[in-house]
Amino acid sequence: MRQPKQQRAVETRDGILRAAAEVFDEMGYAGAGINRILERAGATAGSLYFHFQSKEGLAHAVMDQQADTILPLLRSEGLQRLIDITIVWSRQLQTNVLLRAGVRLTTEQSTLGMGEAAGPYVAWAKVMEECLVEARERGELQAGVDPAQVAEQVVETCTGMQLFSAAAVGRADLPQRVRRMWQILLPGIAVPATVVRMDLDPNRLEEAGLV
Amino acid sequence: MRQPKQQRAVETRDGILRAAAEVFDEMGYAGAGINRILERAGATAGSLYFHFQSKEGLAHAVMDQQADTILPLLRSEGLQRLIDITIVWSRQLQTNVLLRAGVRLTTEQSTLGMGEAAGPYVAWAKVMEECLVEARERGELQAGVDPAQVAEQVVETCTGMQLFSAAAVGRADLPQRVRRMWQILLPGIAVPATVVRMDLDPNRLEEAGLV
Repeated sequence: MRQPKQQRAVETRDGILRAAAEVFDEMGYAGAGINRILERAGATAGSLYFHFQSKEGLAHAVMDQQADTILPLLRSEGLQRLIDITIVWSRQLQTNVLLRAGVRLTTEQSTLGMGEAAGPYVAWAKVMEECLVEARERGELQAGVDPAQVAEQVVETCTGMQLFSAAAVGRADLPQRVRRMWQILLPGIAVPATVVRMDLDPNRLEEAGLV
Repeated sequence: MRQPKQQRAVETRDGILRAAAEVFDEMGYAGAGINRILERAGATAGSLYFHFQSKEGLAHAVMDQQADTILPLLRSEGLQRLIDITIVWSRQLQTNVLLRAGVRLTTEQSTLGMGEAAGPYVAWAKVMEECLVEARERGELQAGVDPAQVAEQVVETCTGMQLFSAAAVGRADLPQRVRRMWQILLPGIAVPATVVRMDLDPNRLEEAGLV
């Protein structure tokens, strides 16, 4: 059983993480001051450094949360699971500040030299590759389609569509862009029976009460 | 005939633009000081403001140069022309500071609120759409493939692959990622005879003496 003291520590950590996400989302990494984060969280500098060591540690914790905001929501398998990851991601980016901050920091860090800059891209590609390996085992992919290569390309396209959509319409059309991506990609990677069976509706998880 | 005075003005403008590109490429928009740009260019503040009005104007001039560093190099048509744009882009990003700064500013500006933030994405999508319309007229595309939709997706994938590649390996594998993109996309959008005819070799324009 979790002790009250541990419980409080978890709540403090979560509060700081969420406040940091809000400030990173609004101002980016360079603009986000530690004092502003502490003020927003109602926390002390001591507790921030106890849980996260540094502003960079805090940024990495925010970035590492990306998959956790999406994967627990999913019940599908194989190629539909990969599609669902991208659908939930596009919906969550509109409402979930922790995910949005994680994505912003991931984009920024290539230029900030924060070390291990490719980490979040590689982590997403790994998660997606697993779905595609499963899809291959289920006979959903065309012969010769390489799960690792397709996974990296999906990460790239999602990264770019997020920036394009944010610049053009504040991310309002992101779910439609995800659907478009699959409409263009599927005929080249999936067998015909799978292409027609995949559900690309941006609302499919909402209807299942998942987002 | 161009007058010597006009000639000098053009050289001054080009010198400032190039110096600005170097500083934007190194430090990003927020970090790039006007004084550092002037020092690098050996120019006066007066001439900078005469040609570009403001730091934002300078940034837009750098971003607007992107297509000009690529399109004049191409002689191909239709789908091969679109492929060549992405090949030359991936090669030029490794060596051409003006293009690299334009791409960095394009990525940054979504978050900087520099107005018309989607401009460069939309401009690239337009150029690519024209190639795809031509490809359709030449019978290279499968029925039902929408040039505007595919064009936006190519822009998104290139935007994301540039960030992924920069974070992972300092852009060293960008030409291979471009080739991968077409290997995955072509079977779903082009007719079989065109798929096998397209040349995806990253060195094909180098061999023709174009880059």
